[in-house]
Amino acid sequence: MQVDIAKGILEKNDALAEENRERFARSGVFVVDLMASPGAGKTSTILATIAALRDRYRIAVIEGDIASRVDAEKIAAHGIPAVQINTGGACHLESDMIKRAVDTLDLDEIDLLIIENVGNLVCPTDFDLGEHAKVMILSVPEGHDKPYKYPGIFQVSEAVILNKHDTVGVFDFDEAEFRSVVHDLNPNAPVFALSATKGEGVEAWTEWLAARVEAAKAVQP
Amino acid sequence: MQVDIAKGILEKNDALAEENRERFARSGVFVVDLMASPGAGKTSTILATIAALRDRYRIAVIEGDIASRVDAEKIAAHGIPAVQINTGGACHLESDMIKRAVDTLDLDEIDLLIIENVGNLVCPTDFDLGEHAKVMILSVPEGHDKPYKYPGIFQVSEAVILNKHDTVGVFDFDEAEFRSVVHDLNPNAPVFALSATKGEGVEAWTEWLAARVEAAKAVQP
Repeated sequence: MQVDIAKGILEKNDALAEENRERFARSGVFVVDLMASPGAGKTSTILATIAALRDRYRIAVIEGDIASRVDAEKIAAHGIPAVQINTGGACHLESDMIKRAVDTLDLDEIDLLIIENVGNLVCPTDFDLGEHAKVMILSVPEGHDKPYKYPGIFQVSEAVILNKHDTVGVFDFDEAEFRSVVHDLNPNAPVFALSATKGEGVEAWTEWLAARVEAAKAVQP
Repeated sequence: MQVDIAKGILEKNDALAEENRERFARSGVFVVDLMASPGAGKTSTILATIAALRDRYRIAVIEGDIASRVDAEKIAAHGIPAVQINTGGACHLESDMIKRAVDTLDLDEIDLLIIENVGNLVCPTDFDLGEHAKVMILSVPEGHDKPYKYPGIFQVSEAVILNKHDTVGVFDFDEAEFRSVVHDLNPNAPVFALSATKGEGVEAWTEWLAARVEAAKAVQP
């Protein structure tokens, strides 16, 4: 019975996600869902992405957190539209939360919508939000063994960001092993090593993202 | 209706947790549930705790992970009984998983049972496993703003470990602010700053834990 209940929740989520996706397509908005552990550097990566791409694209951000408006305030301080979702306890975002957040934005004035999911390597993987791509961030201090323990999130991500790359020397992080296991789990996902707060190594990631934004604009009906 | 379902699951969990608790009490075992983000250093903290207390107490460990036996193997390599639970996707442990793991252990031969929960700052907070104390670990690289974003886990924890404390200088971690916010959320929880992999600062934490182990033995029927 529990399985059926979960299935019902997912089916309802996926139907609304499809509505979100059609809405994004009509406006030619590319939507990326950033997932990571707490403190892996989601907001810092978003800020570095904004710095790299704000002259080329109109960007907006939806921030998901259990509580607080800390992240949305950080984004808004840079003059970027930011909507905060407080899940009130839920460990992931769902498509109806995204719908309500998107209702407050003018999609025709946005090229790139970045969703920051709740800090969690497990729950967000199962929930389609209507985004074009899920991307995950692992930070070096978390350790190179995380793909063994949380394989699902590595498998659903179209790209993997390895953040806090400047601390590889501080921690016992085996980057070759990390890249090898990620490749086994998801052969098509590029791994972008960068240090978001220092702005180092960001370009390969932002150019990959820019190519996806262009593709979304090209297919706009 | 969803609320009722969730309530039913929690009620079932709590009833089994009570059975676990009575079982632990009969054997005079103190049980601690360690919660943290992925990569915060749960296993390293357990290994440092084992090193400090193994001459005084008989210790066993239950390892919870979505997948893999990596952590149980690390513990077992030190000659400590270790049971691995793979949740197969679930983002937290539940009391029935603990019951089944405990069935494989001889509780009368154990003084201290350490449970490592799934790496997650959200889901484990709501689930009573029958443990005597929940303790959380935050690692310095995760950032001092985490109590704002994940207040629940700080509120349910009887102690807070601040791990990777040797990297305070590497990251922009405001320890005074962190301690202040934790104190506001949970005035009775001590904060133990330590570096588990280096074995630094471990004693205050292990002495707190040892006092709790002694208390559990003292009330054994």
